Formats: sequence, C-alpha cells, structure tokens
Amino acid sequence: MDSAVFACFAFYGSLLILKMYALAFITGQQRLRKKAFTNPEDAMRHGGLMYHRTDPDVERTRRAHRNDMENIYAFLFLGAVYSLTEPNLFIANVHFLVFFVARVVHSVAYMFAMKAPTRSLAYTIGQIPCVSIALQILVHAVAHW
Amino acid sequence: MDSAVFACFAFYGSLLILKMYALAFITGQQRLRKKAFTNPEDAMRHGGLMYHRTDPDVERTRRAHRNDMENIYAFLFLGAVYSLTEPNLFIANVHFLVFFVARVVHSVAYMFAMKAPTRSLAYTIGQIPCVSIALQILVHAVAHW
Amino acid sequence: MDSAVFACFAFYGSLLILKMYALAFITGQQRLRKKAFTNPEDAMRHGGLMYHRTDPDVERTRRAHRNDMENIYAFLFLGAVYSLTEPNLFIANVHFLVFFVARVVHSVAYMFAMKAPTRSLAYTIGQIPCVSIALQILVHAVAHW
Repeated sequence: MDSAVFACFAFYGSLLILKMYALAFITGQQRLRKKAFTNPEDAMRHGGLMYHRTDPDVERTRRAHRNDMENIYAFLFLGAVYSLTEPNLFIANVHFLVFFVARVVHSVAYMFAMKAPTRSLAYTIGQIPCVSIALQILVHAVAHW
Repeated sequence: MDSAVFACFAFYGSLLILKMYALAFITGQQRLRKKAFTNPEDAMRHGGLMYHRTDPDVERTRRAHRNDMENIYAFLFLGAVYSLTEPNLFIANVHFLVFFVARVVHSVAYMFAMKAPTRSLAYTIGQIPCVSIALQILVHAVAHW
Repeated sequence: MDSAVFACFAFYGSLLILKMYALAFITGQQRLRKKAFTNPEDAMRHGGLMYHRTDPDVERTRRAHRNDMENIYAFLFLGAVYSLTEPNLFIANVHFLVFFVARVVHSVAYMFAMKAPTRSLAYTIGQIPCVSIALQILVHAVAHW
C-alpha cells in the first residue's frame, strides 16, 4: 500500500467492485418492482407463484453484471500483479483510468440499452489496457523466472 | 503471510473457495442423478439425447454458485487489499467472520429453498463488511496516493 | 515479483486470463457470424429484431467461459496466496502447470464438443492442484494465526 501505483489500483478496483454491487442492487430492485423472481420461495413471499418468472429488464442487468465478472475480476488480478512490477506511475494510472472509464460507460450503455455499438466499443476500449498489462506481466515474469 | 490479518483472511478465503467447489460438485452429482445435461455429448454418454435438458435442482445450485461468484470473488479482492492496510486484527477478523458466516448461511438457505427472506437476509448481512472494507480501502488509497 | 514462485504463478495466471479473453472474442465472432444477439439493440444494428435470438454455438462458448470463471478466478486467489507461503519452486510449478494444461484441455474439449468424459476429466484433473493448494493455505494460515 506504500506504493503509489498500488494505491491507485486499489482505488479504481474498489470503485469498480462498488459499481458491481450497484448492479446487484438494481437487479434486486427490478425483481421487486417488476415482480419477477427466479426462486419460487421469493415469488411466494411477494404475492404467489405466478411471479416466478423472468423479466427482460432483470435479465439485462444480469447480463451487465456477468460481463463485469468476465472483465473486472480479470482486471483485479492483472492490475494487482502489474502493480508489483514497479511500473511507471503515470503509465499505470493511464491503464487503470482507461479501464475504469470504459467499464462505467459499458454499464451505463448496457442499462440504458444505448444504440449499438456504444456498449461494444466501451468493452473493446476497456480490453486494451488489460491485454497490455497481461503482456507486460508475461515479459516481466519470464525475466524473473 | 507473516501478518496475522492476512493469515486470517487467507483462512476464510480458502474455506469459501472450497465451499464454492462443493457447489460445483453438487451440480455435477445432480446432473448425474437427475439425468439433466447441458451438453449433448454428456447426455449421449449417459443414456441419450433425451437427457439433454434442464432441471430445477441443477439450476438452483447454479444460481447459488453464480451468486457466490458475484460476492465471494469481490470479497477476495477487497479482503486481500484491506489486509495490506494494516487494520486492527480484531476488527478485521469480525469483518471476515461476518462475511464467511453470511455466505455459508446463504448457500444453505439457497440449497434447501428456505423460506424467504432467509437467503436475501444472509446476502445483505454479507454485503455490510464488504462495503465497509471497500470504503476503508478508498480512504486509505486516497491518503497514500 | 522477485520470488520465482510468484513469477511462475503470474506467468500461468496471465496466460489463463488471455485464454478467457479468447473465449470472449470467440463469443463475439459467433454472434456476428451466426447472427444471434442477446440484446435487441445489437440485433437492430445487424439486420433486425429477428436476430435477437440464441444460438447453440454461442451458448456453448458462454458455458466454457462461465466454467473458467468458476475455476480460473478461484485459482488466481489460491495461487497468489500460495506463492506467499514460500513453497518449494518445483512443487509449486507442478501445481500451476497441471492446472494450466488441464484448463487449456478443458476449453478445447468444450469448444470442439469432444466425446465425454474428456472435458469432465480435464476439469477434475485441474481441481486436484487447486484443492491441494487450498489445504496447504489452511494449514499455513492456522500456523501463522
């Protein structure tokens, strides 16, 4: 934590986790508002088994959340290891910031069903720093083996 | 690992991963017992393509597993970074223990389809230490930038 | 990163993340080629709402990707903590290599729908080093509490 790069990574990483928690919260609110429960026991508590059903808005939020798991969790590993390779603070910050902004735009584009290819573009831009970090780790790891 | 806080985190983290492996094992056993395979090649091996089908019990276990991915993986990042901020051992232990117990209760409530809101309550209680840790990391990161 | 064990772990971990990115890329290519989009806004951009549909190949790749999330993310936590327990380099390398090869075989077996139980066997073999690492962490953590 004494490392500025790691503090920077921990900052963006924690914000992205809170963003994911927000999607989980929205899913829960949508289930209650649209009365669409994936578990019979939840439907029973909220009016009956006819509410044991799917809803397009709930499914959309769940897709956004799954996409976050596919990408943000990978970033948390890559960013943590990258921080240990003593990268330049400015360059590391740019990597983290691009990913952070891209993922926030991705979530917003997903939730508001914005015109394609907004969401895909945000996804692709977010991948660039991740692949860059992965390659830098590989080079670094081979050198330290 | 010399840090008692990190040893404590590693202990609960590893147990939670083993808990997730248990859900994966249960999914596999349910697929064999209920003869419900998501891949045609698996159905072919176990009696024929009519067993290429879904099953409510299998889907329930998969939902429990996915919810673990949404929450336990986030905790593994948060807990690891938090351990590096030199928190008080007792307070850290309480954070980890509350999350651990809440997630075990969540899985049990899910698998036995316990009366709502048992499962949701366990989920919400497990979120409290996670959000607390995320906020503490943010404060710490800003101070060390 | 000065630790050879950690460099070794970071190497395999980054390759596995790149492998997961490859599955995400394949999913996207399959959606475009098979014209099967999960979001209406994507279907609209690629010909119309009739392409807002599912496709067995896309779903297969998504299952392979989800299985990776269930297993590779768990390994990233376990491997990182294990590296901090100062294990023997050769033994650690064997653990990481077995998992790495097993997961590559798992993905290949999944994508080509290879005859059962090829995929399940790869999955099971990959679990062995993970459970071994988890147990070693638990022993180590208890000793350092």
